Amino acid sequence: MTRITLLTDFGTRDGYVGAMKGAIAAIFPGVILDDISHQVEPGDVHGASLALERYWHLYPQGTVHLAVVDPGVGTSRRALAVEADRRFLVLPDNGLASRVLEGASSWRAVSLDAPAYRTREVSSTFHGRDLFAPAAAYLARGIHLSRLGAPVPEPVRLSPSSVQEDEATVTGEVIALDRFGNLVTNVDGERLRRARDVRVGDRSIPLATTYGEVEPGELLALVNSDQRVEVAAREDSAARILDARVGTPVRLHLE
Amino acid sequence: MTRITLLTDFGTRDGYVGAMKGAIAAIFPGVILDDISHQVEPGDVHGASLALERYWHLYPQGTVHLAVVDPGVGTSRRALAVEADRRFLVLPDNGLASRVLEGASSWRAVSLDAPAYRTREVSSTFHGRDLFAPAAAYLARGIHLSRLGAPVPEPVRLSPSSVQEDEATVTGEVIALDRFGNLVTNVDGERLRRARDVRVGDRSIPLATTYGEVEPGELLALVNSDQRVEVAAREDSAARILDARVGTPVRLHLE
Amino acid sequence: MTRITLLTDFGTRDGYVGAMKGAIAAIFPGVILDDISHQVEPGDVHGASLALERYWHLYPQGTVHLAVVDPGVGTSRRALAVEADRRFLVLPDNGLASRVLEGASSWRAVSLDAPAYRTREVSSTFHGRDLFAPAAAYLARGIHLSRLGAPVPEPVRLSPSSVQEDEATVTGEVIALDRFGNLVTNVDGERLRRARDVRVGDRSIPLATTYGEVEPGELLALVNSDQRVEVAAREDSAARILDARVGTPVRLHLE
Repeated sequence: MTRITLLTDFGTRDGYVGAMKGAIAAIFPGVILDDISHQVEPGDVHGASLALERYWHLYPQGTVHLAVVDPGVGTSRRALAVEADRRFLVLPDNGLASRVLEGASSWRAVSLDAPAYRTREVSSTFHGRDLFAPAAAYLARGIHLSRLGAPVPEPVRLSPSSVQEDEATVTGEVIALDRFGNLVTNVDGERLRRARDVRVGDRSIPLATTYGEVEPGELLALVNSDQRVEVAAREDSAARILDARVGTPVRLHLE
Repeated sequence: MTRITLLTDFGTRDGYVGAMKGAIAAIFPGVILDDISHQVEPGDVHGASLALERYWHLYPQGTVHLAVVDPGVGTSRRALAVEADRRFLVLPDNGLASRVLEGASSWRAVSLDAPAYRTREVSSTFHGRDLFAPAAAYLARGIHLSRLGAPVPEPVRLSPSSVQEDEATVTGEVIALDRFGNLVTNVDGERLRRARDVRVGDRSIPLATTYGEVEPGELLALVNSDQRVEVAAREDSAARILDARVGTPVRLHLE
Repeated sequence: MTRITLLTDFGTRDGYVGAMKGAIAAIFPGVILDDISHQVEPGDVHGASLALERYWHLYPQGTVHLAVVDPGVGTSRRALAVEADRRFLVLPDNGLASRVLEGASSWRAVSLDAPAYRTREVSSTFHGRDLFAPAAAYLARGIHLSRLGAPVPEPVRLSPSSVQEDEATVTGEVIALDRFGNLVTNVDGERLRRARDVRVGDRSIPLATTYGEVEPGELLALVNSDQRVEVAAREDSAARILDARVGTPVRLHLE
C-alpha cells in the first residue's frame, strides 16, 4: 500500500489542500493520504524543513512525501522530486529538502519538467495542485524518478545555523519552539554528556535525562527525541519562562 | 477505492469530527476519509461553498463530498444528497451546494428522508453524525441516490455577489481572503485581459501574470488558480496592505 | 480493513504527529489513519477524555484508538493498552481512559512492558512515537492484547465532577465549552424532563428540544447529542453571552 504524506503552509479552510488531494486522487484513486500539517507558518521554509526531518525516514520505503511551502511560486525557482534512501520527496527547490539531503545515505534529485506528469495548464500561483500533486501521485503509482525530468545535482540548501565551540564552551542557538514551548537547539545531543551546565541568558539550567527528574514548572536541559539538546520545563513552557525565540543563544559549559 | 471527503466548521478538539468518522466507518469499514477542513468559521456557509468549489470536481467520479456547515440544525431546513457530474455531495440545504450546482453540467438532488439510511434516533443537534455521515457512507457503498429520499428540484441557493459593468469599468468585490492574505474577487479572470488597471480604494494595482514579475512586498493583480481576478502581494498579505475584507469593492478600468 | 484513530495535544506544525504516523506505517504499511484531533489544549486530559467518549464506541469493532495527551511523559506513569467492548485504546495511564472504562460493558487493560512491541531505544520525551505508536500498530495488525504486557487491574481514573441533588434542585457544572460556545454540563439529559427551569448565574434559560424553537441569538437548554444537559444559543455562543467557563454551576429547578 502506498502512502503520500502532505505538509503545507496552506491552512485547510480555503480548500487549497482539498484541491491538492483531489488532484492526487484523480491520478491514484486508492492512495492513502496522511496529513502531516497544513499549519506551517506561511513561507516558513526553515520550520518546515525541521518538521520534515522528524518523519520522512520513519515512513516505510516507497512513501512519497509531498511538501509545499513555496513563497517563490511564480518565480524561476525549480520544482523537485527527490529519491532519498528509497523514500520520495516532491517539493520546491528552496531549501526545504536540506535536512533530508544532509541525513540521507544516498539521494538523487530531478527537476519537474516532463509535461506528461503535470496538469495540462499549470497555473502560475498554485503549483501545489498543478505540478507537485500530480508528480507525487505518479511516483506513488510507481513511475521512475528519472521520467519526471532532468537531474538536479545541487538542490538549494539552507545555510545551517552555526555552533561555535572552544575548550570551555559550546554556543548554539534555538532553531525552533515547539507547541509545548520547548526550545529545540542546533546542538548535537552528544555534547550534553560533556557539559556541566546549560545557560540561556543568565539562567543556569540543570541537566536531566527525563522530565521526571525535576518538579512541575522547573526548567531542565536534556537530549530530545531528535538527539538534539533541548531546554524544556516540566508541564510548562520554557519559551515563556525564558522569553526565548528562534535565534536565542544557548551555551553549554564543558567539564 | 471509494473516498469520502469531510468539510465542517466543527473544529477537531471536541471530538465531533471523530464521531462523524466513527459513524461512517461503522457502515463502511474500509472507506478512505480525506479531511478537507474542520476550520471553517462557525456558520460561514459562503466561505465553505467557495472552498467546496475548489476541490469537488477534481476528485474522481464516485467520490462522496460530505460538507456540514449547518447553523440551521434543529430548524426545518432540509438535508440533501446531490449527484453532480458523477460525484456526490451530502450537506444541509442552506446554500452550501450553490457553487457546485452552478458549475455542474448536470445534477439531481434528494432530501434525506429514508429512515433506513440514518441512525435510529436522530438527535436534534448533531445531524452530522446521525444523518449526514450515514448517508455519505451508504452512497460511498454504492446505494442509489434515489433511495435516500424524495427529489428536491430547487435546492436553496446563495444570492451571488454582484458584478457591475459599464463600458469603462467592471466593479466587483472581494469574496474571500485566503490564508496568505490574497483577495479573491468575484470578477471572472477573462475580464483582466481587457483591463489596464485594477483599483482597490485609491490604490492602483499593476497587472501581472505571475508573482515573479513584482518585487517581494509589492502588490499585483492576476488571474488566480480558480480563474478569478485576485489581488495579491508577493510574499506578503494584500489584505493587510490594503486593509481589505470580504465585500471591499474592486474596480477594473477597461482599455 | 483496520483503522487507527489519533488524538493528541501535539499540534501538527512541528512534525511530531508525522513521526507517530511514520512509526505506525513502518509496522503496518496499509493501515488507515483517521485524525481525530491534534488541537487538544496541551496537557488537557479532562478535555481529551470527553472528546474520546464521543467517538470510541461509534467506530467498528477492532478499531484502535491512539490517544496521547501525556503531561507525565518521562515520569513513572504507566503506559496502557485497553480492550473495551472489542475496540482498543493505547494511551498513558493518567485518567484519559476514565470515560471509556466507565461506559464500556467490559474491559481489560495491560501495561506496555514488552520490549518486542516498542522501538529499540525509547526516548524519554516522545513515547507517542517510541511506545504508543508501535503498540497501536501491532494491535491493529492483530497481536493479542496480553502480549503487550502485564494486566493493570486499576487504571488511573479522573475524579468525576459532582452533581448535587435535592428535592427541588439539581446542581451540576459546565464540563466543557465546545467550539460553538455551547456549555456541556455533567447533568444527565434524563433530568431535564423533570425540570421547569435551568439557571446559569441569575439567568433563567428556557427548555427546548431543538434550536428551531428559539430565535437566533437566544439561549436555550436542551439534551445534547451526548445525552447531557447543554446550554446553547441559536447561531450564537452561550459561553460568551453567559460569560461561562469550565466549572460554572448550572442549576435545574425541578417540577
